[in-house]
Formats: sequence, C-alpha cells, structure tokens
Amino acid sequence: VALENKIDIENNDRIEIVHTDKFVTMEDAPLCVKGEKADSSMATGLRMLCDGEGDAFVSAGNTGALFAGANLIVRKIKGIRRPAIAALLPMEPPVLLVDSGANTDVTPECLEGFAIMGAEYMERVHGVEKARVGLLNNGTEATKGTELQREAYGLLSCNGEINFVGNIEANMIMKDSCDVLVTDGFTGNILLKSMEGMGKLALTTLKELLLSDTKGKLAALLVHEKVADVKKRFDGGALGGAPMLGISKPVIKAHGASDAREFKNAIRQAELCANNEVCRTIADRAQELVQKRKNASGADRRAECEDGK
Amino acid sequence: VALENKIDIENNDRIEIVHTDKFVTMEDAPLCVKGEKADSSMATGLRMLCDGEGDAFVSAGNTGALFAGANLIVRKIKGIRRPAIAALLPMEPPVLLVDSGANTDVTPECLEGFAIMGAEYMERVHGVEKARVGLLNNGTEATKGTELQREAYGLLSCNGEINFVGNIEANMIMKDSCDVLVTDGFTGNILLKSMEGMGKLALTTLKELLLSDTKGKLAALLVHEKVADVKKRFDGGALGGAPMLGISKPVIKAHGASDAREFKNAIRQAELCANNEVCRTIADRAQELVQKRKNASGADRRAECEDGK
Repeated sequence: VALENKIDIENNDRIEIVHTDKFVTMEDAPLCVKGEKADSSMATGLRMLCDGEGDAFVSAGNTGALFAGANLIVRKIKGIRRPAIAALLPMEPPVLLVDSGANTDVTPECLEGFAIMGAEYMERVHGVEKARVGLLNNGTEATKGTELQREAYGLLSCNGEINFVGNIEANMIMKDSCDVLVTDGFTGNILLKSMEGMGKLALTTLKELLLSDTKGKLAALLVHEKVADVKKRFDGGALGGAPMLGISKPVIKAHGASDAREFKNAIRQAELCANNEVCRTIADRAQELVQKRKNASGADRRAECEDGK
Repeated sequence: VALENKIDIENNDRIEIVHTDKFVTMEDAPLCVKGEKADSSMATGLRMLCDGEGDAFVSAGNTGALFAGANLIVRKIKGIRRPAIAALLPMEPPVLLVDSGANTDVTPECLEGFAIMGAEYMERVHGVEKARVGLLNNGTEATKGTELQREAYGLLSCNGEINFVGNIEANMIMKDSCDVLVTDGFTGNILLKSMEGMGKLALTTLKELLLSDTKGKLAALLVHEKVADVKKRFDGGALGGAPMLGISKPVIKAHGASDAREFKNAIRQAELCANNEVCRTIADRAQELVQKRKNASGADRRAECEDGK
C-alpha cells in the first residue's frame, strides 16, 4: 500500500504488530485457512478477532479464503442460514447489494435473511432510516422472476420487520429506488461486475475524450475540478470495502487493488461496524426471525399473510 | 416516429399500406395476438409474414405480444427448443446477448441452441468469421456457476460446431472477449438493464460535466466532435433492434423509444436477415443438432466427449 504520509509503524503506540511467517496467496484454496495456512496472517487475525483481541478485521486478500475463514474461525451468527458478502454500489445514495457473490445457490429464506442483515447494516453504519429493501428481478410484478424470486417476494412482503419496496429492475438501481438490493450470489456477481465494467468503460471513455489531443486537454483544464466527482461516481473504492454480513464479528473485505485512501475507508467502516454493534443487532433480529420460523414454515407464513390481506 | 425528411407515404410505390383498425397496446397481454387483437396491425403483419407476403417484420411495440405472436403465428424453427430474444450490446466490437429476457427458466440444451443461433446470426448478419461464443458466468473455471452453467459448459465444450471460448465474467464483456454471450433470460435481463442503466448514467454525467456551467460549456465546444462517438458507445439504439432468434422468418423488435434513425437501422437489419437467409441456416444447424441429440442424450454426449479427451 502506497501511503501518502509515511508513518513509523514500529514505533507507533496505536499499532501493534503480530508477526507471522506465512500469508494466504490469491491462488490458495478457501479452506487453506484451516489447513496449511492456519498460521497465516489472515487466519491469525481472524483467530484474534474471535478471541476478542480485536474488534474488527480488514483484509484485501483472497476473498474466498477470507469468507471461509470468517465462517470457520469467527463463526456465523446463530439463526443466520447463510452469511453473505455485501457490496456497496457507488450510487447516489449508495445501494447495498446482498449477496454480491458468496452464495451461488440460495433459498427464499436465505434472501429474507440477506434483507434483514442488509437493512440493519445500512441503518447502523450509514445512518439510513428504515432502509428500503428491494428484490432484484426482471420486472416489477410479484409474478416475475424464477420460483426463487416469486417465493422470496412473498416472504419479504409478509415480514413486517422489513421495509420491502418490491421488485427492482437493474436499470432502476441508479435511480434511488432502494437502499438494500437483495439477490442470489450468482446474479449479484453478474450485476456487480457488469456495473464495474461499465463504470471503468465510462472513465476510460472520458479519459480518451479529455486527453487524446490538444483540444481535449484544454477542455480537461476547464472541467478538472468536476472530474474528481465523476471518478467517485464510477468507482466503488471510495465507499470502503465489502462487509461480510452474518459473521459474529465485523470482517471487511477491502478491494484487492485498494490504495491508501481505500484502505483507510475500509478501516473506518470496520470501526463504524464495531462501534455501532451491527453484529449484535443482526444477531437480535436473527433470533426474532428464528422465532417466527419456529411458529410457521415459510409457505405457512406466506399463506397466512395472503389470507390476512 | 419523427422523420427528418418527410416523404409522401401514400403515394410511394415502395410502400404498400395494409389498413387495420386495431393495434396492440403496451398493456395488452402477450396472448392477445391470438385473441381479441387477432386483427391488430401486429397480428396482421405477422400473418402476412407467415404467408409469404413479406420477408421480414419489424415492430417497436409490446415485446411480450410480439414474441408470443412470432411463436404462435410465424412459428418456431423445427428442432429449436426455445426461440430467444437476442440483444446487440453496444461494445466495440458488438456482442450478441442470447437470451436477453424471453426465457426465464431454461435447460442446458436451450443454452446450446442459443449458442448456435447467436453464432449463425453474427456470422450471417454482422459478417463475423467463426463467431466466438462465451457463457456468462461468475468465474472462468468450468466448475463455476449453478448446475445450469456447469452442464451448459459441458455441452458447449463438446459441440464441435460451436467456437466456444469458455466462461465470461460480466466485467470482461467490454473487452472483446466474445461475439455471442449465452445466458438464461433472467440473468440476461439483469445484465442488459444494468448495462443500459450504467450507460445512461455515463451519458447524464457527461452532460452535467459539459453543460452545467460556462467552463463546462466551453469544454463542450472543444470536444463536441468526439461526443457523438461517446454517445454511440453507451447507446444501443445505433445498432438496430433485437432479433427474435429461432423463429422461422425474421422478426425484429425495435426499441420502444426508437427515433427515425433507429427504425431505419432496424429495417436494414431485417433486410440483412432476409437477404442472408439467417432463418434457413439456423434451421439447417438445428437439424444437425436434432440428429446429434437423437444419437445421444446430453449427459451421454458430455461423457463421450470427456472420455475422448
């Protein structure tokens, strides 16, 4: 990481170094954190987090290994079926995408859990009031999508704890239509990467427009103050890293290509998660959901809610 | 449609008007073309296409009704399991997305059909040689995705008629990684709309940058020649409409908000489809596939191919 203002890390009483000889590479398999890389920096850090020697963990390393380590070492919150990797989309205001890729195959109940975790995160960490939860779908009607979306629509509509605003089409995400966007990890991955790809294309195109010849360079001089805002709009890094929701302590995945500023943002985000006790409030809400599910199955709850309408 | 150069339609020997009193609205259900709207302009046109009174059909109307009408009136090609609505993504070079939304639930065999139809279209209409076919997925490895993608990967790899280049992640679409991108209609819809949404956001942002104050307007004067290229890059309309692949005659869905130029492009595209006999060559290749399938099931073909490796 290139630090703009270098500090003396070894003689800084705000920083304590725990030395390890091993580290997880991008090629390592996710489960390495419990095997041959159990004494790597990643696994050591996660163990310290679990043992209470730290309040949050930030890493820009191997996402699969970090997610596996979070699940296997720090452990998931009781009552959460599947932890998820959320991603903050750089919209205005930002939209939290849950799941952005951790769970390829999910049930409608998983999506209900994603909604609760995402809303709690946006309310606690981003100060959003009554976070609006949308379901990513191929149309706005309740009958749209595959069986997964149709059943999830029913569960989300009937859960009085969720401020569900209905199905959201992918071209509406940019239009302040929701604060939390719920989807399976396969679709979430496609969405996130297509938006990243298009964002990069927009920035490259702007660069070509403004820097390819003399006229362009003159134009660039005229608008350079605003270009920074444009960059922010098409670049997710400014918003920090991806929180792993449903893990019992805060674990943040910083972007692999993070610079010093992005790392700082991810650390600030981890601090907010810890100070605002996101994990504890998610655990409380998970308990409420478990109670609800004990009283009635998903199908029963949907039928009950529809009868009540 | 606003025509820049108005022509006298009624006294033009290149145009023949067939009068109808009814038309399909955006609110009509897809099946209306066989029911209460059977004598609408859309249904009449499709019937004329089927009867050989025309060579291709272009419409900017209700997509669901047009697709249903194409299937029910013009009929699908023998051997094609599911016709699809393809969309040309405005990349450089363009990428044909199949399916962009017609079929929410598909089998691996459907995706194999999409690959064959898409490749034939790009070769015949866009002059691409040996069109590269990619499978939209959440990673490049053969084991990525849901069961659908994993099985489709096997079928596509084993089909010697398809120039399969493997899994394509959504951030690679912009990087000339394939000519045809195969996916189910649910994921295709999400991808297409997110790209459309981000494209619009890019153009809006550029507009704000260049027109919001005097400095911006001066900058705009300097780069205005290049702005047209930028618009083209983020705006699909320039490439024509969406071909309905697997229908026995050319049916093109023009964008609902088409202007005269976009309509002209869609009509030119329809002419290319008809002149280059895309439907006939797709029918030929569908027959070959039927023959292959008769000889062995999908699972057998994959196993055979893997044994042969």
